[in-house]
Amino acid sequence: MATITGPLSGDAKNTVAEALQGALVDLIDLSLVAKQAHWNLIGPHFRPIHLQLDELTDLARTHMDAIAERAVAVGVNPDGRSTTVAKSTKLQQLESGWLEDGKVVATITDLLDGVSKRMHERVRATDEPDPVTQDLLIAVAQDIDKQHWMFQAQS
Amino acid sequence: MATITGPLSGDAKNTVAEALQGALVDLIDLSLVAKQAHWNLIGPHFRPIHLQLDELTDLARTHMDAIAERAVAVGVNPDGRSTTVAKSTKLQQLESGWLEDGKVVATITDLLDGVSKRMHERVRATDEPDPVTQDLLIAVAQDIDKQHWMFQAQS
Amino acid sequence: MATITGPLSGDAKNTVAEALQGALVDLIDLSLVAKQAHWNLIGPHFRPIHLQLDELTDLARTHMDAIAERAVAVGVNPDGRSTTVAKSTKLQQLESGWLEDGKVVATITDLLDGVSKRMHERVRATDEPDPVTQDLLIAVAQDIDKQHWMFQAQS
Amino acid sequence: MATITGPLSGDAKNTVAEALQGALVDLIDLSLVAKQAHWNLIGPHFRPIHLQLDELTDLARTHMDAIAERAVAVGVNPDGRSTTVAKSTKLQQLESGWLEDGKVVATITDLLDGVSKRMHERVRATDEPDPVTQDLLIAVAQDIDKQHWMFQAQS
Amino acid sequence: MATITGPLSGDAKNTVAEALQGALVDLIDLSLVAKQAHWNLIGPHFRPIHLQLDELTDLARTHMDAIAERAVAVGVNPDGRSTTVAKSTKLQQLESGWLEDGKVVATITDLLDGVSKRMHERVRATDEPDPVTQDLLIAVAQDIDKQHWMFQAQS
Amino acid sequence: MATITGPLSGDAKNTVAEALQGALVDLIDLSLVAKQAHWNLIGPHFRPIHLQLDELTDLARTHMDAIAERAVAVGVNPDGRSTTVAKSTKLQQLESGWLEDGKVVATITDLLDGVSKRMHERVRATDEPDPVTQDLLIAVAQDIDKQHWMFQAQS
Amino acid sequence: MATITGPLSGDAKNTVAEALQGALVDLIDLSLVAKQAHWNLIGPHFRPIHLQLDELTDLARTHMDAIAERAVAVGVNPDGRSTTVAKSTKLQQLESGWLEDGKVVATITDLLDGVSKRMHERVRATDEPDPVTQDLLIAVAQDIDKQHWMFQAQS
Amino acid sequence: MATITGPLSGDAKNTVAEALQGALVDLIDLSLVAKQAHWNLIGPHFRPIHLQLDELTDLARTHMDAIAERAVAVGVNPDGRSTTVAKSTKLQQLESGWLEDGKVVATITDLLDGVSKRMHERVRATDEPDPVTQDLLIAVAQDIDKQHWMFQAQS
Amino acid sequence: MATITGPLSGDAKNTVAEALQGALVDLIDLSLVAKQAHWNLIGPHFRPIHLQLDELTDLARTHMDAIAERAVAVGVNPDGRSTTVAKSTKLQQLESGWLEDGKVVATITDLLDGVSKRMHERVRATDEPDPVTQDLLIAVAQDIDKQHWMFQAQS
Amino acid sequence: MATITGPLSGDAKNTVAEALQGALVDLIDLSLVAKQAHWNLIGPHFRPIHLQLDELTDLARTHMDAIAERAVAVGVNPDGRSTTVAKSTKLQQLESGWLEDGKVVATITDLLDGVSKRMHERVRATDEPDPVTQDLLIAVAQDIDKQHWMFQAQS
Amino acid sequence: MATITGPLSGDAKNTVAEALQGALVDLIDLSLVAKQAHWNLIGPHFRPIHLQLDELTDLARTHMDAIAERAVAVGVNPDGRSTTVAKSTKLQQLESGWLEDGKVVATITDLLDGVSKRMHERVRATDEPDPVTQDLLIAVAQDIDKQHWMFQAQS
Amino acid sequence: MATITGPLSGDAKNTVAEALQGALVDLIDLSLVAKQAHWNLIGPHFRPIHLQLDELTDLARTHMDAIAERAVAVGVNPDGRSTTVAKSTKLQQLESGWLEDGKVVATITDLLDGVSKRMHERVRATDEPDPVTQDLLIAVAQDIDKQHWMFQAQS
Repeated sequence: MATITGPLSGDAKNTVAEALQGALVDLIDLSLVAKQAHWNLIGPHFRPIHLQLDELTDLARTHMDAIAERAVAVGVNPDGRSTTVAKSTKLQQLESGWLEDGKVVATITDLLDGVSKRMHERVRATDEPDPVTQDLLIAVAQDIDKQHWMFQAQS
Repeated sequence: MATITGPLSGDAKNTVAEALQGALVDLIDLSLVAKQAHWNLIGPHFRPIHLQLDELTDLARTHMDAIAERAVAVGVNPDGRSTTVAKSTKLQQLESGWLEDGKVVATITDLLDGVSKRMHERVRATDEPDPVTQDLLIAVAQDIDKQHWMFQAQS
Repeated sequence: MATITGPLSGDAKNTVAEALQGALVDLIDLSLVAKQAHWNLIGPHFRPIHLQLDELTDLARTHMDAIAERAVAVGVNPDGRSTTVAKSTKLQQLESGWLEDGKVVATITDLLDGVSKRMHERVRATDEPDPVTQDLLIAVAQDIDKQHWMFQAQS
Repeated sequence: MATITGPLSGDAKNTVAEALQGALVDLIDLSLVAKQAHWNLIGPHFRPIHLQLDELTDLARTHMDAIAERAVAVGVNPDGRSTTVAKSTKLQQLESGWLEDGKVVATITDLLDGVSKRMHERVRATDEPDPVTQDLLIAVAQDIDKQHWMFQAQS
Repeated sequence: MATITGPLSGDAKNTVAEALQGALVDLIDLSLVAKQAHWNLIGPHFRPIHLQLDELTDLARTHMDAIAERAVAVGVNPDGRSTTVAKSTKLQQLESGWLEDGKVVATITDLLDGVSKRMHERVRATDEPDPVTQDLLIAVAQDIDKQHWMFQAQS
Repeated sequence: MATITGPLSGDAKNTVAEALQGALVDLIDLSLVAKQAHWNLIGPHFRPIHLQLDELTDLARTHMDAIAERAVAVGVNPDGRSTTVAKSTKLQQLESGWLEDGKVVATITDLLDGVSKRMHERVRATDEPDPVTQDLLIAVAQDIDKQHWMFQAQS
Repeated sequence: MATITGPLSGDAKNTVAEALQGALVDLIDLSLVAKQAHWNLIGPHFRPIHLQLDELTDLARTHMDAIAERAVAVGVNPDGRSTTVAKSTKLQQLESGWLEDGKVVATITDLLDGVSKRMHERVRATDEPDPVTQDLLIAVAQDIDKQHWMFQAQS
Repeated sequence: MATITGPLSGDAKNTVAEALQGALVDLIDLSLVAKQAHWNLIGPHFRPIHLQLDELTDLARTHMDAIAERAVAVGVNPDGRSTTVAKSTKLQQLESGWLEDGKVVATITDLLDGVSKRMHERVRATDEPDPVTQDLLIAVAQDIDKQHWMFQAQS
Repeated sequence: MATITGPLSGDAKNTVAEALQGALVDLIDLSLVAKQAHWNLIGPHFRPIHLQLDELTDLARTHMDAIAERAVAVGVNPDGRSTTVAKSTKLQQLESGWLEDGKVVATITDLLDGVSKRMHERVRATDEPDPVTQDLLIAVAQDIDKQHWMFQAQS
Repeated sequence: MATITGPLSGDAKNTVAEALQGALVDLIDLSLVAKQAHWNLIGPHFRPIHLQLDELTDLARTHMDAIAERAVAVGVNPDGRSTTVAKSTKLQQLESGWLEDGKVVATITDLLDGVSKRMHERVRATDEPDPVTQDLLIAVAQDIDKQHWMFQAQS
Repeated sequence: MATITGPLSGDAKNTVAEALQGALVDLIDLSLVAKQAHWNLIGPHFRPIHLQLDELTDLARTHMDAIAERAVAVGVNPDGRSTTVAKSTKLQQLESGWLEDGKVVATITDLLDGVSKRMHERVRATDEPDPVTQDLLIAVAQDIDKQHWMFQAQS
Repeated sequence: MATITGPLSGDAKNTVAEALQGALVDLIDLSLVAKQAHWNLIGPHFRPIHLQLDELTDLARTHMDAIAERAVAVGVNPDGRSTTVAKSTKLQQLESGWLEDGKVVATITDLLDGVSKRMHERVRATDEPDPVTQDLLIAVAQDIDKQHWMFQAQS
């Protein structure tokens, strides 16, 4: 059975593994939360927010793949199973049922604020052990910060 | 606050709601399981299976959106949150860590067998109350049956 | 002079002819109403509603062609002339002049509610005589129900 | 409630309004007539005429949007409702039922002759009050004249 | 050696197998007949019929693949070998040599009439045992009926 | 050193030169103002206005190139340097800092009203000396009038 | 045998016919001259001029089609046969054999100067009798003037 | 009735006719054999072989059209009817039922070996009588030889 | 001044030069004749022939460029000026004025017969001196023969 | 009224704000300078430099948007108004009137040298406070350095 | 003669020059090795590995261009000549002749391991002297690490 | 282990093998030489030559793949390793360091002259043993001769 080895080992590998797994859970749950709001949204601003939530899901899906594949490339198993995500997610969860547009904007803004903070920490944490991983996390942070601004701007 | 009303009511609506929510959870978890296997796969057949698993994720994502939006259109709230998925999924879960190609093919085959059976039941159940919903479930079942054959064919 | 014959005859053909002609008038007038609102719209939600009304026209145009061509294929003459549409339409008509966004959303929601109800009846009516025609009407109903939800959600 | 003001006023505005509303009705009814013939056509030249009629509908739809939006831009309400079109159209109407290819070519040729004449009048009429509107009408006239030639050439 | 199992068994499976194999032979031979006429056609209506015959081949090829893959997905072996097609085809065969346009239109019209009738029978036959298969056959019937109308319209 | 000569001379050339340089400054500053608002916008209508402002920048950029290249083609040097624009612009300037959506709509509406008026004057002024230049200015005026309507409609 | 009639007659038709036939010969010969230079060019500036000459051919071909089809649409026969072009062209002819880049630039500049002058005259001449034709000639003049500038700029 | 004459006659025409008809039957049956294997394939290498067989069908279809149209262009009737193909094919036929991947690779390799040999003979045979036909056969042989290598390489 | 040298010299070069210049004149005049007929065509088969004539112009233009550039590449000056074409063309010339569809088909068929014969002679003539040039002429002959068949088939 | 907060505060925010505003002014004025030269350019190297200057404008426009949106995302107001640009630009300004190609290359080379130096300083300055901003500035510097080389290479 | 100067000098320039030249040789030889294996590959896993090797060549080619152009931009001459590559490459060389799939996977895995290690060293080495160069090397390392994982996964 | 057999044997195979291996080395080294010049080029004609060298690399890469795959298809191992290329190339090598534009044009012209001569020899050599291989070499020679002319034309 194959053993995947990568360019890291020891503490560097552990630090990077932790950062990538944390980012993966953030991004998978973000994609699910955004879809949940995309579907259950109501209110006079329905259409622009409905469309923007889909952009959010799209970017979360694109980044989750890059992040998980970086994990494998450094020899670490990404864990994106539903149970793992449900147990370890740090995202504020949405209520069931219809979601009013104003509340969705506020909740997504808060939630992106949290994701942004954690991504910036991961950017700092991986600078020394693996600038290649860091570069992927920077790309995630750029997009998250931009979405954070856009949701905030309409609240 | 808006109230979404659709073309159904009473028992018809309840039957359709149950079928759609069940299909939604199947499809979301299928997309996560397929990605998990896509990332952690090893073995001499790595590349073709890695690619086919991505096709599986893509079709699961496309259908989940159609299914959830049909739910809203008939006035029912779809629930695709990670906790809901983790709690109510009927899919056989993958182990953590590296996944050998032969085992992945076998597991995905079994899992698609279950999804196929449940989709066919939902197709039968919605025939009477809502042929419009049934039509969407038939499209899901076609793709699931096709994937089921393809994974089976290489086992 | 050619005589177009198709797979139906007798009562089956009459039922199908009536369903298709009814759907055709609904869709042609829907395309005209949506354009009328697209042009005369005013109000703070102008842009998203302006764009969504164009999507509505587009789907009405796509479906009207499929519906009319099904009529010909079963040997029935579709009638989509302006006088016929004006005389037989069941759609709630818009006032002339500027149309405020809130009122447009309310009117289009009501109007789609009516179209949806008639389409579902046609789906039921054609199940026995011609499942091929029914399948086209189901596709229309799916899109109408989805638009109905979306206009309703922002009201 | 918003008031749309544009670059014209007084007589200039009235002249332009009349030209645009006339062109709009011509183009909407042309799109409906061409579709009606596209669907009910029979005869040995079926295919090339069937396809050309669709090109006619496409260009009528494209121009009607430009014309109506110019109306709004000069502060005038375009009226494209089915009743208005049915009442005010100047186009020769098609009979119901199957339409032989030779007759369709002759009728469309006549009908385009009339549209062409009215468009050239509108081009003259708007030269002084609004060259911007005139430019749009010139584009319509170019396409109408070209279609007129092509239908004429095959009669 | 792999065994492909699907969602059907017993009589349901047999009925579906027969419908799919019949449809497959119809579609393969239709693609060959249309190409034969596409190549050997002569007459003043050469170009439009030459092009339309290619559309017929294209749609026959697209549907044959969907039909055969549905067969495999329900655990049945499709048989599309030349000998099988030659032996079991029910399509009226073309003469060798040059084919005059009028005769081609008449022959293809007749031939599509037969295919249409058999497809509608298969749609009825599969309604109970497998609505997923039926849905594919409905799509075939829609396209066949449309082509039947178009060839008929120019005869 | 090359001397660029064109089809105009004397007064005609001077009139055209003035019209083109005026249009150029209007369009360059419009592209900058629209971007400034695109970036600093806040308010509940953020997303649709943010997107529309980008369309405004795009069309300003497309037209400025056509206008400046017409100037060169008639042998006149266009001047689009930042200092020239800053000194000679007639556009109402935005305040620095965050810009509320309602105020942005009002300001852009006013500003487009002014640009429209000046463009229509240039259309009149160039009619006699150079219909080729006039045609480009008409195209600018059409787009400006359309944007003017759309911003006005949502105020 | 069909007779093509259009929106013009008498003197207006004659003036327009002459303008269109003159423009047609200019554009056909321009496309041939530009290709001749494109093929036989030599010199250190070979590549940019070789490419620009192809752009010149492309635009000449595009405009010649529009011009000739306008002629037919007004009921006039365009004459683009090689003998007619050779006999009536007013373009300065290239020598046979290799053509040095500097000389090509100078010759094409002169030749475009002539075409530009004649097009502007045609624009003036058609203003009264047919603004629809004039609009097409304006489009030609815009492109010719632009090419004239570009060749001039590099001489 | 039209008589198609081409650039050949006598022995040259007969030789070319025979080569083209032989190539046509090879290519039609190759397209059917490849589809049959594409559908009924099983085994651990399912996916890459399934996809490659579709490429084989695609190239067989593309070449069969070029070959048959060359036949018509030289005044010869191509015969691609199912009975003709079944009777005159020289391809090794597949068994009915499931086909194991290793056996498919071996059979297709053998079969392409035969097609390649016959195509090379046809290339030689047409060199003298018609280099234009030969050029098309060379293009077929290139693709067949390449597919032959690729199937051989994985056996 | 640059001297272009290529892979040929002496008799070989002369033979190739003659073949290429002859082909160039054929192709340029073919493109002009086809356009002339495309514009002046009348008759009940107008549309399909109008479109096919444009395909003929397109392929003549594509091949003329390849042929002329091969001439330069072997160090020979192609001559595609209008006077040269008018003087040396061997194509049957069209009458001025309206051209009936049946006559156009007959004339183009004859004319393509002549071009085909000359191209086949050039293919033979260049076989020995330059197979690279021959290959380009074979490509021309393939397309000419195909067009010859298609026009012939509809006569 | 919304307040945009981002991931930075205090000195870090100030440093980043200054770097981004400086980069924004550099890029906006670069886009205007490049267009000014694109339009007023003359000389034998006209075409390649004309085209390259447009690439320069394109990349300046793409980067200015990314830079300004990063500013907003960190809670800082970008200022891209014409007056601000005119007052604070550090780019060497072009003279009015025609610009000879050699001089344009020299001036743009110098100007890009300055922009490059300032961008590298900003890259250094933002390394500590915000690696996410730094990453965007690195992308700008890469493109600026590349353009600097290309202009330099042809001087 | 032009002198290319860039943003670096002294030790920084030397360090960066060495890193870029080393990366260039790695990437050029990687593109050649991958093609060599792509062509000479045999074994049951032929197709997926054949395709993946082409992806490897593609990415090596894309990165080599970016790396070499960065070298020029900092004023250093990249050396990618065959002799230089042959002499200085550090890649494990393939044997001549047929290459079995298992061995290819193993060799490419080893070889990518080496390239990855050297790229990571270059990333570290350029962090201080030139973060702009470092950013390009990080992009190379990301792709190399990903390919390394994928080849490893199937061994 | 697979043995690749093809349509050739004995002397024919040896002749073809030698021609293909020679062409392969020519093309690989041409792609490397062209890139080397593309990167290190300086001089006032920088941009057009820089771009043309990239076209040269592109066509060399496209042809090298076709040539090497033909070798495999006839059962011969192509050898494209860097050492083989460096040892056996017949291309004139470039000096290291900056390369002035005039010198690059002269060197590439000479070098293409040599490649052209060798390709024409290979075309002659393979005529008898394998016209399929010859056809690929003719395509290479066409492109090489065309590039040879273009570089020569600007020297």
